[in-house]
Amino acid sequence: MSNNIDFYFDFSSPYGYFASTKIDALAEKYGRQVNWRPILLGAIFKITGSGPLITIPFKSDYAVVDIPRCARYYKVPFQMPSVFPIASHVPSRAVYWVKDTDAALSRKLGRALFHAYFAENRDISKLAVTIDVASSVGIDREALASALHSPTVKEKLRHETQAAIDKKVFGSPFIIVDGTPFWGVDRFEQIDHWLATGGW
Amino acid sequence: MSNNIDFYFDFSSPYGYFASTKIDALAEKYGRQVNWRPILLGAIFKITGSGPLITIPFKSDYAVVDIPRCARYYKVPFQMPSVFPIASHVPSRAVYWVKDTDAALSRKLGRALFHAYFAENRDISKLAVTIDVASSVGIDREALASALHSPTVKEKLRHETQAAIDKKVFGSPFIIVDGTPFWGVDRFEQIDHWLATGGW
Repeated sequence: MSNNIDFYFDFSSPYGYFASTKIDALAEKYGRQVNWRPILLGAIFKITGSGPLITIPFKSDYAVVDIPRCARYYKVPFQMPSVFPIASHVPSRAVYWVKDTDAALSRKLGRALFHAYFAENRDISKLAVTIDVASSVGIDREALASALHSPTVKEKLRHETQAAIDKKVFGSPFIIVDGTPFWGVDRFEQIDHWLATGGW
Repeated sequence: MSNNIDFYFDFSSPYGYFASTKIDALAEKYGRQVNWRPILLGAIFKITGSGPLITIPFKSDYAVVDIPRCARYYKVPFQMPSVFPIASHVPSRAVYWVKDTDAALSRKLGRALFHAYFAENRDISKLAVTIDVASSVGIDREALASALHSPTVKEKLRHETQAAIDKKVFGSPFIIVDGTPFWGVDRFEQIDHWLATGGW
């Protein structure tokens, strides 16, 4: 079993964003590394019968209160994006392509993409925006633009989403530590305790 | 606006049970009281399109891991009931009937019913079991048995469930403090912070 922490998320998920601001520091505290695994929740919702928060009666009203309240509670910069939710294929593919050669840089890119979307209201579903963000963390624009059109990179995201389905991942953030699943940024305290104690 | 904390829950909800073990102490810390409001989540799920955890693909597998893990984490006695979920009309009606004359006793009854179901594997959906539990906290058996057949008490539960729907309550536990909703036992830390600071 890998010592790494698997961090599944959809770039369109506010709670995934909150998790993205804390997970690497949490892992490092225990000498672990995080494996960033962007997925397409839409494909998973087709199986579980769920949908984006904002499409669910009552839950959508709650989300409008809870999301900004959590942002203030966690003290992370946040503004609700004007385009929400988004299809997250482009930023997800970028992360996988970078991860192939540089895992640390893929984490940095993941954090930058989440920040661009949820703190700066930039629509990262657009190719040009994802490339701008990637460039800001030192990734070559031309190479990335070319990769984002590559069938191999597209297939990688499909494959990863299917692999997440096989592990019964159903939400974002969804974290697997030592083979054990934790769903939600509100499980971080338990993840911390798990990493400190080896489970209970 | 009431100073009380509204605690909505379904007696069939394990996370509602976890909340039931902590909420009165939390409220008392800030000189508040808890208004226990059992509801029938089934009626609400018809509106939101959701269902009991154990009927949802993937989420049900997660629940099997997360529920006992949370019980150990929160250090509350727990065993998964052999009959689950249950229709929670009977224990809910008992709580409302008692609350009419003695709010403190209704909280004590609520805690005892949750404990009987989730710590002692007693099926509180059954009239005889709910009456036994009520009797153990000093409630008159005959008077309760008669009340549980009263149309007024049945109507009270329908009315309360509808009132919860009007407030867009969609899960268990669901807590409203100063007009602000919090969903989930994993929001207790935020509720504590809210009560301490008056909001943020």
